[in-house]
Amino acid sequence: MNIQSPESKQSQPLAITRKLARYAAQARYSMLPDNVRLEASRAFLNWMGCALGGSREPAVQLAAATAAELGGGPQASIIGHAQRTDIASAAFVNCISSSVLGFDDAHLATVTHPSGPVSSAVFAWSEKNAVRGDAFLAALALGIEITCRLSNVLVLPPSKFNVGFYVTGLTAPIGAAVAVGNLLQLDEERMNWAISIAASQTGGFRATHGTMTAHFRPGHAARSGVWAALLAQRGFTGNQFALEADKGFVDVFSVGADLERAVNGLGEHHELLNNAYKPYPCGIVIHPTLDACLDVHGQYGKGGVPVRAKLRVHPLALSLCGIREPATTLESLNSLYHWAAAALVRGRAGVPEMLPDCIADPRVAQLRSRIEVVTDPGVGTEQAEAEVALADGRTLQARVLHARGSKVRPMTDQDLDAKFRSQAGLVFPAERVEKLRELCHGAASLRNVGREIAAALS
Amino acid sequence: MNIQSPESKQSQPLAITRKLARYAAQARYSMLPDNVRLEASRAFLNWMGCALGGSREPAVQLAAATAAELGGGPQASIIGHAQRTDIASAAFVNCISSSVLGFDDAHLATVTHPSGPVSSAVFAWSEKNAVRGDAFLAALALGIEITCRLSNVLVLPPSKFNVGFYVTGLTAPIGAAVAVGNLLQLDEERMNWAISIAASQTGGFRATHGTMTAHFRPGHAARSGVWAALLAQRGFTGNQFALEADKGFVDVFSVGADLERAVNGLGEHHELLNNAYKPYPCGIVIHPTLDACLDVHGQYGKGGVPVRAKLRVHPLALSLCGIREPATTLESLNSLYHWAAAALVRGRAGVPEMLPDCIADPRVAQLRSRIEVVTDPGVGTEQAEAEVALADGRTLQARVLHARGSKVRPMTDQDLDAKFRSQAGLVFPAERVEKLRELCHGAASLRNVGREIAAALS
Repeated sequence: MNIQSPESKQSQPLAITRKLARYAAQARYSMLPDNVRLEASRAFLNWMGCALGGSREPAVQLAAATAAELGGGPQASIIGHAQRTDIASAAFVNCISSSVLGFDDAHLATVTHPSGPVSSAVFAWSEKNAVRGDAFLAALALGIEITCRLSNVLVLPPSKFNVGFYVTGLTAPIGAAVAVGNLLQLDEERMNWAISIAASQTGGFRATHGTMTAHFRPGHAARSGVWAALLAQRGFTGNQFALEADKGFVDVFSVGADLERAVNGLGEHHELLNNAYKPYPCGIVIHPTLDACLDVHGQYGKGGVPVRAKLRVHPLALSLCGIREPATTLESLNSLYHWAAAALVRGRAGVPEMLPDCIADPRVAQLRSRIEVVTDPGVGTEQAEAEVALADGRTLQARVLHARGSKVRPMTDQDLDAKFRSQAGLVFPAERVEKLRELCHGAASLRNVGREIAAALS
Repeated sequence: MNIQSPESKQSQPLAITRKLARYAAQARYSMLPDNVRLEASRAFLNWMGCALGGSREPAVQLAAATAAELGGGPQASIIGHAQRTDIASAAFVNCISSSVLGFDDAHLATVTHPSGPVSSAVFAWSEKNAVRGDAFLAALALGIEITCRLSNVLVLPPSKFNVGFYVTGLTAPIGAAVAVGNLLQLDEERMNWAISIAASQTGGFRATHGTMTAHFRPGHAARSGVWAALLAQRGFTGNQFALEADKGFVDVFSVGADLERAVNGLGEHHELLNNAYKPYPCGIVIHPTLDACLDVHGQYGKGGVPVRAKLRVHPLALSLCGIREPATTLESLNSLYHWAAAALVRGRAGVPEMLPDCIADPRVAQLRSRIEVVTDPGVGTEQAEAEVALADGRTLQARVLHARGSKVRPMTDQDLDAKFRSQAGLVFPAERVEKLRELCHGAASLRNVGREIAAALS
């Protein structure tokens, strides 16, 4: 095709969409260094725990019931439920499960949640088609990598990004598509089409946060990736320059973005390693504040009575999680005020602190109304300060330079195991939890990932 | 929810999303004036013809095969095929059919194609659920109206809209959602959620044009609307201020847009009446040029041999349809050069002129390379000028002030009937074409639209 348009960039030699497609078509487990293999395995374990932990939430029940109404073939599990559905709908519902408690992983530099859409898509596909563990993890790593890299393109300078866009919705459909496409062994051209079809399904905005739709959007990203890969496999065509073209993906979703970020050092530098696992079930931008509050709580212990707090945070923490008075669990995910108050009152910040009884707890509610938040661009996204006044007249302080779960203070394997047990334990007895945990840990050596893990789930 | 964010607009009294939801929940056939009822009926007939005419195209076959692979329940027809599938997938595939030959309707002010997604969604739903003809047409009119109004919001001044966005992809998911939601009799709050869920599925960009993905996107809009309405019916929540909120729909997809355009005179002024039916199967921005070329052809008739042409057009005609040398039927849809050459050589601009033999016709190909296009912001979007040099030395001219199919020169009922026959005739014998045409014409008085029309389709 030859577009005769003055502002056309289609004739430029640099076809980044094609470079990504080539890499995605060729990516194999054997090409990944050990630390990337390990991180893919950790991401999978974390995702499975989140998907189980969220599986009883109303948003998941409603999505599963709607999938049942449409009657897709019984191809894949709805995790935590006896129901089976088609692989696109399973990817959709399981991703909502893994997102809904706000416990899924996050690429902190861009506030993207890559593993939910990617893992949900490849896991559903692997239930219908035999996939070896190493191929499964390679596809997972690929999808997370491409998602995070495209998020860097859109969000980081020189891009003038509108922070209102929901980054996961803009990039994870493409990550999920290349991951499934890799398992489908799409050739370079069809992988290119898969990227184009997926890119045309991207979107979403942050005003949905606090409602079920905030979790619908990652679910939709997972489903979009499945559809894109399946259509491309059959020969459904797309623009081979979908990402860089005039009137293409980057043109509409970002101004001034450096698309080279998508491919610079691809296969050598692994952005996947900057993906973090959340220690707390809420927006990751709140986490440094929670570390600071828990630190202060440790200073006064059970006997202390916090009466007032002043928090100093990065502006994004308030912009993305500024709900002052959450009415529901879903709203609490994006409430800096609630989580700080809960952590200071209870000395904990886990699943119980997001539930209605904690939101309504008079001590938490009273403190919530007495929290002052100061935003400061000089505070890093991994940093926060808390100054807490106690009933006995003392004022205690804490300052966090690197949040727990960040690259400098990553969640250990033991942390992740404990997190998995806390989530899976909401649904399964301890014995099944351990069996499943071991299977996910050892996913790399499974002969048929989907069948073996689905058996442990059913 | 109380967002404590400095730039928050959520506390403002004007809740336009809610006004739209209220209107959508209450809209009934009895409230529509005769001209709107008639136009809804014409839009439905035009859509059905387009869906039949496109049903044999490869993009449709591939989409239908993928739907079959996922195994949705046999709830609704894939038009022109024996296969049945779930209502979301049927809406998806049928909308691709209605779009793929570039013959679907268009809201010229915004270059939006409203009826494909809306009709496909409500028709699929009406096959699973008994719907009277008047209720069906009311839902159709509602979905088209909301789609066109939201397109006005995004595209028209004072909005600084990025023309790279695919407007249909941004607004038709919401139009399809409210249309299905109206049939589902959603209350105001659930209709509001449906709008939010649909808005989170909006997106798409014009660089997909010329490929199958350009038609995937409207199909995806249809499916998105079905999912949004079904989820909202069950109680799946969304942001009640999805359109106007800070970090909401208008915030991310447009700068400076006037959201009041969505509700000003709602129920009194009907933007549906500015929706036009294409006389030619290609981008609507090409149509004035085709009128001019056919006018000139009429001047020289069969004996004339055009050797060179100069066209003066609105800039959007070249920006959206600037493909110089189309290689495929899909690319031809967006080639001003091809259609002008075909019209000048053949004196026609119908389905045969988009087929490979016309694209490869040496006379057409030669003239295509000798067409000069001058863009001029002083030329209206419904206007064009052609100056054609003939082999005998003559130079003939034509100037079009209002394209055929525009509001000033609308397609008559006879034009639409002829168009329907030309499209449906690609698939059905004449007798079935007439039976179906009569059913669509009389849709308002059918007792069960989906069942009666599906019977004529099967």
